[in-house]
Amino acid sequence: MEITFELGYALDTFYFLICGALVMWMAAGFTMLEAGLVRAKNTTEILTKNVALYSISCIMYMVCGYSIMYGGGEFTMFLSGITADGATGAAEPATYAPAADFFFQVVFVATAMSIVSGAVAERMKLWAFLAFAVVLTGFIYPMEGAWTWGGESVFGMYTLGDNGFSDFAGSGIVHMAGAAAALAGVLLLGARKGKYSADGRANAIPGANLPLATLGMFILWMGWFGFNGGSVLATATVESANAVAVVFMNTNAAAAGGLVAALLFAQILFKKADLTMALNGALAGLVAITAEPSTPSPLQATLFGAIGGIVVVLSIIGLDKLKIDDPVGAISVHGVVGLLGLLLVPITNDGSTFSGQLLGAVTIFVWVFATSFIAWSIIKAVIGIRVSEEEEYEGVDISECGLEAYPDFTTKRN
Amino acid sequence: MEITFELGYALDTFYFLICGALVMWMAAGFTMLEAGLVRAKNTTEILTKNVALYSISCIMYMVCGYSIMYGGGEFTMFLSGITADGATGAAEPATYAPAADFFFQVVFVATAMSIVSGAVAERMKLWAFLAFAVVLTGFIYPMEGAWTWGGESVFGMYTLGDNGFSDFAGSGIVHMAGAAAALAGVLLLGARKGKYSADGRANAIPGANLPLATLGMFILWMGWFGFNGGSVLATATVESANAVAVVFMNTNAAAAGGLVAALLFAQILFKKADLTMALNGALAGLVAITAEPSTPSPLQATLFGAIGGIVVVLSIIGLDKLKIDDPVGAISVHGVVGLLGLLLVPITNDGSTFSGQLLGAVTIFVWVFATSFIAWSIIKAVIGIRVSEEEEYEGVDISECGLEAYPDFTTKRN
Amino acid sequence: MEITFELGYALDTFYFLICGALVMWMAAGFTMLEAGLVRAKNTTEILTKNVALYSISCIMYMVCGYSIMYGGGEFTMFLSGITADGATGAAEPATYAPAADFFFQVVFVATAMSIVSGAVAERMKLWAFLAFAVVLTGFIYPMEGAWTWGGESVFGMYTLGDNGFSDFAGSGIVHMAGAAAALAGVLLLGARKGKYSADGRANAIPGANLPLATLGMFILWMGWFGFNGGSVLATATVESANAVAVVFMNTNAAAAGGLVAALLFAQILFKKADLTMALNGALAGLVAITAEPSTPSPLQATLFGAIGGIVVVLSIIGLDKLKIDDPVGAISVHGVVGLLGLLLVPITNDGSTFSGQLLGAVTIFVWVFATSFIAWSIIKAVIGIRVSEEEEYEGVDISECGLEAYPDFTTKRN
Repeated sequence: MEITFELGYALDTFYFLICGALVMWMAAGFTMLEAGLVRAKNTTEILTKNVALYSISCIMYMVCGYSIMYGGGEFTMFLSGITADGATGAAEPATYAPAADFFFQVVFVATAMSIVSGAVAERMKLWAFLAFAVVLTGFIYPMEGAWTWGGESVFGMYTLGDNGFSDFAGSGIVHMAGAAAALAGVLLLGARKGKYSADGRANAIPGANLPLATLGMFILWMGWFGFNGGSVLATATVESANAVAVVFMNTNAAAAGGLVAALLFAQILFKKADLTMALNGALAGLVAITAEPSTPSPLQATLFGAIGGIVVVLSIIGLDKLKIDDPVGAISVHGVVGLLGLLLVPITNDGSTFSGQLLGAVTIFVWVFATSFIAWSIIKAVIGIRVSEEEEYEGVDISECGLEAYPDFTTKRN
Repeated sequence: MEITFELGYALDTFYFLICGALVMWMAAGFTMLEAGLVRAKNTTEILTKNVALYSISCIMYMVCGYSIMYGGGEFTMFLSGITADGATGAAEPATYAPAADFFFQVVFVATAMSIVSGAVAERMKLWAFLAFAVVLTGFIYPMEGAWTWGGESVFGMYTLGDNGFSDFAGSGIVHMAGAAAALAGVLLLGARKGKYSADGRANAIPGANLPLATLGMFILWMGWFGFNGGSVLATATVESANAVAVVFMNTNAAAAGGLVAALLFAQILFKKADLTMALNGALAGLVAITAEPSTPSPLQATLFGAIGGIVVVLSIIGLDKLKIDDPVGAISVHGVVGLLGLLLVPITNDGSTFSGQLLGAVTIFVWVFATSFIAWSIIKAVIGIRVSEEEEYEGVDISECGLEAYPDFTTKRN
Repeated sequence: MEITFELGYALDTFYFLICGALVMWMAAGFTMLEAGLVRAKNTTEILTKNVALYSISCIMYMVCGYSIMYGGGEFTMFLSGITADGATGAAEPATYAPAADFFFQVVFVATAMSIVSGAVAERMKLWAFLAFAVVLTGFIYPMEGAWTWGGESVFGMYTLGDNGFSDFAGSGIVHMAGAAAALAGVLLLGARKGKYSADGRANAIPGANLPLATLGMFILWMGWFGFNGGSVLATATVESANAVAVVFMNTNAAAAGGLVAALLFAQILFKKADLTMALNGALAGLVAITAEPSTPSPLQATLFGAIGGIVVVLSIIGLDKLKIDDPVGAISVHGVVGLLGLLLVPITNDGSTFSGQLLGAVTIFVWVFATSFIAWSIIKAVIGIRVSEEEEYEGVDISECGLEAYPDFTTKRN
């Protein structure tokens, strides 16, 4: 082989691995964010859910997810193993290590599933949640992934890419998909006791540890450089290196725009500098830019992020009016703003169309929501999805995990 | 283009982006450090300040800061946008992506501003602080950056580089500058209520969460590899790769030296292994080596760090004698030791002179202190910079942000 | 020099530095894990131990450790310094920066020492511990490192590599070695007051901050990509890039397998989803794969990790029956599973033998345990290793460090 080919292969592989490690790091970000936004009495359980869902995602994607999404359904990886040359299923004369491709893809699955855990927090049974994780990461997500990034047609009906659908790093494919699965769960699960008064008003249930939530936001922001930056899929040429650099720059700009917009908007609405809205604003900015971080100017990226930051505040308020109880705002951040991100793409990317984006969004949402609703319903029928009222009142940490998260401090308030 | 050129371009770009991501990560480090060192009742507000200042820095540097610092004042970036080929303002036949250059530079601005937030913690109004952030990151810092790294002459008077000034990664340009801005604010703001007794003694006000502060220190240590390592500005040759490696090695060594020296020195002085002094010692070691991490031997780097670690302990004690109240020790760590770092450069770097370092230090300090003092004064006159005595007593979290940081735990002590 | 050589040199150097930074990050992981698993009253002290041991490791390895391990005992580095070209002691026509080699190696030493701090937590004197750190990182670890990775013969008796011993990234050389040193300390130190009842039953002493412990686990998981991935020692060819990618993939898979297995096993045993067991399961999976992450398929890696996850649960229960008190489970995770990792190597790596692995394990264990026992004994005789009963009851934070970790919250429970 040419030594220049080898160097390019090595650089692209290293780039994938580092970006993948950053996306893996996002699992820690979601965990800290959610652990900071729930009450002390439900913290051990949300931690357990998060570490377990990441691990289950990795196992299920290896067992069948990757084969469904990129292998045309040939379950070669599980049966014949992944050789030292890397994962099977990758196209022949690879320009980077096939194992690096698998590693980068597998951490994306976990991201989708992480979105669910926050929305159903503080009231869902742990093992019901993990059973759903098996289904989402092994089947539901890989199917829609095959239709989009895998390039297959949807049930033989149409190919999304041919219809002008474009989703660079997954505003829809990953984030809105996760939110759709979460929404199905929340509708079946109902709101937390005490969240909504008889007169319909939403009561604030503050999170127990805001430094932790802030840390989670920063981890996610940092990990997102890998999430979006790695989605260029190559870096060893001038053109691809420029693209990766623009993606890093714009990802950062959008998060900044989202944070500032949400902070200002919350100040106007509530007369307070609401930290949790600011954190969700940054995440909304990141979700909004994820569908297309390579074509906007940094000013556009900042503005797209800012729109996301305002939309997420409105959405969080709106969902509370609908009594859809989402303790961490995940459905708003990833679902509503994920859709926004898809719809913003045609403004800067000529290769996509507004109708194509809508068709894609509807396809993803209908598929994920419907299959998730079925899966949650089956789990509900078989083992139940909600803890008892007494367990919810006492906190699920003791009943599910047998461990308090902060045993030296807890004053049993509320 | 030659494929070898493309590979070098791609490697240098990737190196800049990863180093930039590590510097961005330092924003999380400052946030955790400061959130751990303030009292529980002021934690939400310091978190909010930190996430907001990072975002504001990114926006202001895009709008005008980068143009002032490197573009000769042509505000092309804001007006014409940054194209997909990267940021304008970079020299023509780039050897790495212009957008990567912008990304790496933008995260440095935020570092300078992060230094301020700790020093003015627990008593400054949130929006006054953020107004100052706009001025510092959009104007004050870019101006001195243009005189130093930008290579322009200071008000047409002299060019710092020609006078033997050398500041590799910013002991002065970033850290001492941030501390000068902080000092101006602290002088106008005054000490926290109860910090100094009538008889002049300083009362310890312990931080609420030392694991968080320790995490912040580790994040900063890690991020500093990007801060100093990226400042070599290239890595795709044997020579530059060696330089980057030496910088990583020495950065680590200096932090280790600073930590051990401060821990031992505090043990001798106070008969206790004072963790907060150890943490500040590590940071002081990092600041001390930042002005020149590429020429010392690792033993020298360790010793330079150790000197920083001892100086920071003395400085913290000394500032308290002067009743300059800096809750996290930021002025000592970044200001006093930043100056020390500048003055250590000529020992190992023949390209710098002691007089050049002094001239540079004075120029930076006078500029940043004077303009900051004016900016703080205007903000003070217009909206005020200090919260009311009652708000300070109750904690600024409720009055400024409407959210407690640890609502399930707080026992309203103190 | 050929430009392609330069590019390969630069890429390999950058790869080493990033992997090294990730391993350095593991120091933060151990710190958070241990700070989360001890009681609130002993938190400042465990933080102080951890930040200090990392720093001491860096200094001692520079002063003499690196020279013993790789330099044939020539203390050139300390005496003549490390030049700007990098560390001396590296082989002549380097294919990457010598300083990057030193940087990567130095962070490994700290990992070995980090294992000790958790096992002796909550009752050992701070300065006794740090004195031991000097001995382990400056002498004990480098000696066994010389016999294994350094390729020297053991006291002139035999060369481990020639006997079929293989330990890719250090299941034995780093992890079991750290655990052996810890075991020696724990045996001399005794159990914490109240840990074992008169009738021999072990009492659970829950950790004070499980989100912190979970964060520590995630940091370690992420850092392990550098730990194992960097141990390929090159990445600038197709073959080495493939190897690095497989190592990343398998490291992730083993951790996932360990976590799920431990969680399920604990659920079966205790009828609760025990988070701390899950965390230790993930770490056990990582330790188990560390001896050979490059030859298994991802399915094998997952299974090896799962075996580690089950073994660690059994080992933690078993050590409690033996009244060996290890507050964080470090001896089980790193020692017992470290041995397991060594013994799993011959299954997938033809270059190793079962007898060679046993010989290596025994050599490492006997050396590290015996020398550590002597070192601990001397320290015990000279300054004592255990705090007084009253200090232990009150918590070592106040007596050793003079600072509470959570002063605004602590309710003095327990």
